[in-house]
Amino acid sequence: MITISAFRWVPPFARGQVRDLRVRWALEEARLPYRTRLLEQGDQDKPDYRTLQPFGQVPIFEEDGFVLFESGAIVLHIGERSEALLPRDTQARARATQWLISALNSIEPSVMNVAAIDLFYANEEWAKLRRPGAVEFVQRRLSALSRSLGDKPYLDGARFTAGDLMMTTVLRILKHTDIVTRDGRLAAYIERCTARPAFKRALDAQIDDFKHAA
Amino acid sequence: MITISAFRWVPPFARGQVRDLRVRWALEEARLPYRTRLLEQGDQDKPDYRTLQPFGQVPIFEEDGFVLFESGAIVLHIGERSEALLPRDTQARARATQWLISALNSIEPSVMNVAAIDLFYANEEWAKLRRPGAVEFVQRRLSALSRSLGDKPYLDGARFTAGDLMMTTVLRILKHTDIVTRDGRLAAYIERCTARPAFKRALDAQIDDFKHAA
Repeated sequence: MITISAFRWVPPFARGQVRDLRVRWALEEARLPYRTRLLEQGDQDKPDYRTLQPFGQVPIFEEDGFVLFESGAIVLHIGERSEALLPRDTQARARATQWLISALNSIEPSVMNVAAIDLFYANEEWAKLRRPGAVEFVQRRLSALSRSLGDKPYLDGARFTAGDLMMTTVLRILKHTDIVTRDGRLAAYIERCTARPAFKRALDAQIDDFKHAA
Repeated sequence: MITISAFRWVPPFARGQVRDLRVRWALEEARLPYRTRLLEQGDQDKPDYRTLQPFGQVPIFEEDGFVLFESGAIVLHIGERSEALLPRDTQARARATQWLISALNSIEPSVMNVAAIDLFYANEEWAKLRRPGAVEFVQRRLSALSRSLGDKPYLDGARFTAGDLMMTTVLRILKHTDIVTRDGRLAAYIERCTARPAFKRALDAQIDDFKHAA
């Protein structure tokens, strides 16, 4: 049985955003059952957990004693078992991986810089001075992404892959703003990906776990 | 024949740092020959190149009409052909991928935030105010990485993988500071990885290409 770690409680703004959503979504697309190991506040910094996840992040993936961290690596690992995430063809598979890594390394860092300013540092002087430049930077990246998507339904063409899964979760990080959705093409892309039943099941499951917090 | 894109000219501080180094290193470890397609200033923003690389970054990888971007995805693609980068065993392979993605998503964003402050925004007020917090953030991540490395020569144990390749290139981004190397374990780790003949050949090849700039 697959177990993934998640937090039992996070602040309201983070609900539906925590990175275990990516892995839940991948597991739902692949139709693999899983259970969750819910961490109490502070558990992520205890030696037991840090031995498994050096940075104290969620999720970790555990199965029969095998442990893996980094949501991107876990989604690729699940993808090895399911064509719903990674095509069998070597080149199409490499391109799906390309878009997954693009989400994590070419888009998420600039997205997170804006999100961190808004959610953690809004009252700091540097954050007020920096925000316009940080927004401009992410907008340039998003315009390039939108042009590349063009009229295709998904990043690599007609079919959804692990790359779309990751890109969608990254773009959703800015849903407290219209920075992404003012681009009609990206707004429609997010709608298309999050309309998938597997996404809905994953999101509901994450939100549901918070309801059991003490 | 494999072709990778690189810049014909970059400012001195960026020489030995441009992302094509990662792919050159992977190709050298895998002993695959390649040639370079050197971009002139501005070529990266022309429609021809943007069609292949939406964000105008280097490198792209081209082989017999197949095109791939994102250094992380290219290194994984090369790794499919070489056990020098990715072990055959499924679990060991997933862990090598985990460390590669950890480098790109859990370490590089905070490393790049400090590097960008130092190299691009040093005179801006927000950058002066932000730098201490940005350094503190990256130091927490690096301490966690160092603890996880422990006494092992490489991140996953006794053998070098694509994860170490990527982590090393990410840690080198801060070589204008002692933020990484003040940790003796990480300093020795970088020495160990960059002592590899394949790294030296890759670095020499990148530097050599700059010598041919007009």
